[in-house]
Amino acid sequence: MNTTVLDLAKTLISRASVTPQDQDCQDLIASHLVPLGFYAEKMRFEEVDNLWLRRGTASPVLVFAGHTDVVPTGPLEKWDTAPFTPTEKNGVLYGRGAADMKSSIAAFVIAAKEFVTQHPHHKGSIAMLITADEEGPSVNGTVRVCDALKARNENLDYCIVGEPTSDKQLGDVVKNGRRGSLNGELLIKGKQGHVAYPHLARNPIHLCAAAIDELARTEWDQGNEYFPPTTFQISNFHAGTGAGNVVPSQANILFNFRFSSASTAESLKNRVNTILTSHRLEYSLTWTLSGEPFLTPRAELSKAMAKAILDETGISTELSTTGGTSDGRFIAKICPQVIEFGPINASIHQINENIEISTLEPLKNIYRRTLEHLLL
Amino acid sequence: MNTTVLDLAKTLISRASVTPQDQDCQDLIASHLVPLGFYAEKMRFEEVDNLWLRRGTASPVLVFAGHTDVVPTGPLEKWDTAPFTPTEKNGVLYGRGAADMKSSIAAFVIAAKEFVTQHPHHKGSIAMLITADEEGPSVNGTVRVCDALKARNENLDYCIVGEPTSDKQLGDVVKNGRRGSLNGELLIKGKQGHVAYPHLARNPIHLCAAAIDELARTEWDQGNEYFPPTTFQISNFHAGTGAGNVVPSQANILFNFRFSSASTAESLKNRVNTILTSHRLEYSLTWTLSGEPFLTPRAELSKAMAKAILDETGISTELSTTGGTSDGRFIAKICPQVIEFGPINASIHQINENIEISTLEPLKNIYRRTLEHLLL
Ligand SMILES: [Zn+2]
Ligand SMILES: [Zn+2]
Repeated sequence: MNTTVLDLAKTLISRASVTPQDQDCQDLIASHLVPLGFYAEKMRFEEVDNLWLRRGTASPVLVFAGHTDVVPTGPLEKWDTAPFTPTEKNGVLYGRGAADMKSSIAAFVIAAKEFVTQHPHHKGSIAMLITADEEGPSVNGTVRVCDALKARNENLDYCIVGEPTSDKQLGDVVKNGRRGSLNGELLIKGKQGHVAYPHLARNPIHLCAAAIDELARTEWDQGNEYFPPTTFQISNFHAGTGAGNVVPSQANILFNFRFSSASTAESLKNRVNTILTSHRLEYSLTWTLSGEPFLTPRAELSKAMAKAILDETGISTELSTTGGTSDGRFIAKICPQVIEFGPINASIHQINENIEISTLEPLKNIYRRTLEHLLL
Repeated sequence: MNTTVLDLAKTLISRASVTPQDQDCQDLIASHLVPLGFYAEKMRFEEVDNLWLRRGTASPVLVFAGHTDVVPTGPLEKWDTAPFTPTEKNGVLYGRGAADMKSSIAAFVIAAKEFVTQHPHHKGSIAMLITADEEGPSVNGTVRVCDALKARNENLDYCIVGEPTSDKQLGDVVKNGRRGSLNGELLIKGKQGHVAYPHLARNPIHLCAAAIDELARTEWDQGNEYFPPTTFQISNFHAGTGAGNVVPSQANILFNFRFSSASTAESLKNRVNTILTSHRLEYSLTWTLSGEPFLTPRAELSKAMAKAILDETGISTELSTTGGTSDGRFIAKICPQVIEFGPINASIHQINENIEISTLEPLKNIYRRTLEHLLL
């Protein structure tokens, strides 16, 4: 079998696996690894296909985590090529999932094949945790697989999440953690009335403006060695029925914290409540914690990955914790070292998503070198 | 003809003249006054019926202004009686238009009949300016009639607008002016982005909060002898697409000034721009002036009305300029003295609109006494 990373990436891209569909991508992955001694277990939860692959029973366990689902294409007429027809043009491979993250999956599959072919008696175990619901609600995907592994005491040691972390060049950024994400749904209570009789009304927009200003200006923390400072952003503010002569009865506000490990969800909740109360607002506030911050300090995994990148590309990689959430937050609960590494992310979730073909082999080699550092 | 105010009010209420319908109310009014020497002129503009009635050609001209249209009933099942079936119950007359303002019209028609019957050679002229579009867009109603009168140099001296101005008792409040109304449509410009990367976005909600707070706290003026202070109210604030992870690109704000004659529309515009600019906001702002303030200082008309009220009810009436706009703003442009006086306004525009039957004769007498003071 001489399947290249490019071959496999193209086959995966040709399957229109928009969340939560898998379109047999997971079967294709398994078909490459089962002949090499991988045990394959399908874990379907509700409408979501998940796949657990493992070669070996010993520790340490190195798992590659990824997703076969992709985000919707957006307007087809804006694409220069058909999004599910992988197309090579001027050294670039175009298609939905090219960067996020079918190329990473292809690269790891081929890396694992090369590694076990060359080192059939490697130490520890190699595993893959693949879901088809990372871009969607993420309820029946990685988090359920992690629960199942934990329930049967199947321990993990190192996890590489194949998300596209590279910024300008392949290898320049590895993520060793992610900030937490905390959402607040705030309702400011006023009293409806007519604009001509404001003394009979209480305008929630007027009442909360100073508090909003204070929330927007607050320094929540200064971050720390691994995390940038916590940020606060209001995504939605809605008050008023459209009528120009009515003082609205309430204002509805949605906000989000991306928070470093220098704060906790509880400390942020308390501080928001203190500010709202100090402005004498009548309000109700519902919180949703979408993810605790997680962090993998410099240790074996990040060192092995950094050395693999340096040896393959000459780049001294940078550890970062910026950006959105990823399934790494779920895996971090059952795996002491979780890092994320994959291709350049400039085109992800966009029209004409793509990857430079010349980065596919180096990406595979970085994964293989990491396996060599940790499992030989 | 022994039609009473109650009879005529009931006949008018029984006609479902929801804006811009008149349902021949104006013909009914004319049928009462034409036999007494009133000249009647129908002035239909687009879909709106208007009526101009005048008895006499000399000055001074005292005109009663009113509207035969009524606001919609709202949910019929919430009414205790059918809204267009005038119903007497425990001394109260129920029906849509009972307070706003078919009873005022009936009262003035009967007052005028009594007055001209008793004083056929009164001095000056008595007129009525009746529209069927006061509760609606008010585009083809009173304003067009005033334009027509002005175009033919038909001058007015005193105008009584029959709006329901009384608060607790018939006669306690006369309006001798109305505040101006100025609307602003404000767009605060930001830059869309992802909440996880706020340094790449500019959040318009955050940016404008301090300016909103300052606008809400500003004292625009202190009012004056006739007007309460100018007020500012934001009726609508909308920003955000609903998505919880997107920093919106703009915030859309609607606000309204009710302004005294201590400010002008221009001065308010300048001050808002100064505040927005001082907060370094990028914005666009569209203004709509719905009405300049108008004011009738104490003079013959208000004195005659106050004396009529005192003699009829024993109440020392109060001159006020509060509340919403009325057609008085149009008439004030062609008539030096405009005041508004009518029944208690507690139930207007509401379910179970009503008027105390015992106030109908006094209301008619107040109008008649005012005619006597000014035209004898
Ligand atoms: Zn992804
Ligand atoms: Zn009215």
